[in-house]
Amino acid sequence: MPTNPNLDRLAACLSRLPGVGRRSAERMARRLVRDRDGLLNDLSSSLAAAASTLTACGLCGSVTGRDENPCRLCTDPSRDASLLCVVEDPGDIAGIEESGGFRGRYHALMGSIAPAKGIGPRDLRVRALMDRLGDGSVKEVLLALDTDVEGDATAAFLAEFLRGKGVRVTRLAFGLPAGSGVAYSDPVTLSRAIRGRQEA
Amino acid sequence: MPTNPNLDRLAACLSRLPGVGRRSAERMARRLVRDRDGLLNDLSSSLAAAASTLTACGLCGSVTGRDENPCRLCTDPSRDASLLCVVEDPGDIAGIEESGGFRGRYHALMGSIAPAKGIGPRDLRVRALMDRLGDGSVKEVLLALDTDVEGDATAAFLAEFLRGKGVRVTRLAFGLPAGSGVAYSDPVTLSRAIRGRQEA
Repeated sequence: MPTNPNLDRLAACLSRLPGVGRRSAERMARRLVRDRDGLLNDLSSSLAAAASTLTACGLCGSVTGRDENPCRLCTDPSRDASLLCVVEDPGDIAGIEESGGFRGRYHALMGSIAPAKGIGPRDLRVRALMDRLGDGSVKEVLLALDTDVEGDATAAFLAEFLRGKGVRVTRLAFGLPAGSGVAYSDPVTLSRAIRGRQEA
Repeated sequence: MPTNPNLDRLAACLSRLPGVGRRSAERMARRLVRDRDGLLNDLSSSLAAAASTLTACGLCGSVTGRDENPCRLCTDPSRDASLLCVVEDPGDIAGIEESGGFRGRYHALMGSIAPAKGIGPRDLRVRALMDRLGDGSVKEVLLALDTDVEGDATAAFLAEFLRGKGVRVTRLAFGLPAGSGVAYSDPVTLSRAIRGRQEA
């Protein structure tokens, strides 16, 4: 099938977005061209607006306005500055905020340690985390990392790294998710739920 | 969690791409902002290049260069102009071409009849199909539609609509996919494969 270099270039670009494979990228590219005056136009102008007005918060790493850096969460005086929650991706912050269970501040690592993908601590925002702990105001670092191999490796690394730095290091509890059943739980989840059992 | 109107606008735009939900769109938007000088920039410029150089082929509906309309498939003199393959989406053309089993021309409907979504024949490129049949050069219309409810409804509509127009109307065979097993086939596939059985 004849291809077009500008279509291929657009699809290649779209396939660099998270969760987008080659086939979906091609489909998106065709849709964009077909709806040039609508979707393509809208996307172009919202990209331009995002590029000129948004940036990553210098503290937590979430997206924020260029005129609001550090972001509103990082400067909110009603939040507990002694409690710092470390997440892999800024997108994880929204879920934790929705839970209503946390009133401290955040720090996104921008990934997790994944030797298989060549991602080590230097590729993450570990240095920036150190800098934030420098003045001694943070008393507890809560690791809110994924419970997969990479998340576990990252938690182990940070726990070791932060040892002796004068902060308490905690991690989200392991156990059964809400609305789930014992019969549907995998062995690792169950064994962790048993190990972490609490008084009823 | 504080949000930003320009981030929301970018995410809303991305969620209009095929196969992208709200959560993935938000993730994509954050990634774009984080990689402003890389991915965001590249996407902006490839969108601009696509907008200025690409268009939909006036005959088949696939993406083509503005300086190549009708597209190369539609003007290739080595292809059989008497055989027209009707697909739902231009993206289906690539798969048929890869199969090597078809040497005619194509016509994309840009969707299928879906009353539940309010999509009727007028929302598809049926009028354009009629125009292409006007001069009598097309002798056979091969319906290469999906085998879901919408594809079946579209095939039934087109078969009826094209009756008495002097063209043979065919549809892709139903049956077991290659590399599959009887045990893994659903009842509808099996009953269609039995009905369409051929001499061994």
